[in-house]
Amino acid sequence: MATSNAVAVWEGKLRDGKGSFKAQSGVFSGSFSFGTRFEGKKGSNPEELLAAAHAGFFSIALSARLGKGGHPPGRIETRAAGPLRTVGGGAQVHPTPLYVRSQ
Amino acid sequence: MATSNAVAVWEGKLRDGKGSFKAQSGVFSGSFSFGTRFEGKKGSNPEELLAAAHAGFFSIALSARLGKGGHPPGRIETRAAGPLRTVGGGAQVHPTPLYVRSQ
Repeated sequence: MATSNAVAVWEGKLRDGKGSFKAQSGVFSGSFSFGTRFEGKKGSNPEELLAAAHAGFFSIALSARLGKGGHPPGRIETRAAGPLRTVGGGAQVHPTPLYVRSQ
Repeated sequence: MATSNAVAVWEGKLRDGKGSFKAQSGVFSGSFSFGTRFEGKKGSNPEELLAAAHAGFFSIALSARLGKGGHPPGRIETRAAGPLRTVGGGAQVHPTPLYVRSQ
């Protein structure tokens, strides 16, 4: 089966450095920083990538299950959140809640 | 701390349907299909998003640790793979190996 790859780079120190990510397929890429990850500044971060992956996995899996059960959906839209919390002085990524609409 | 969101949509049945994803930040978006996820066709899939997230988390965390230890790196590049395997008739996403270069 397929193996998919991506690269992420971080340059410089934590606070004033800069990061970037790129999919091997070329379909998506972007950048992030301390500010966009930890301070709510406008931009992307790894949590957003995780949320997109989670939403994608779930939408496909739910479509497959409903189809097997004889109720193929027309459209499934899943919104996932990738929340970051401070726990014991460190940052932790928590399991993302999902919000699903199916038609 | 920040919460990041993304949406993924699947339309149609598993084999001939189509999927898409979009980050709330607007930084990245893309599409995928049964072929790009399960048949190795050119394009993206949720595994690639997971690989990008994993690579990003690791690059930032390693930079932070090295900096705390008094050895701040100039650049950390992490490549992650999001392999998908068939196990017992179902698809499973396995933990991704990481390949890291630090300067």
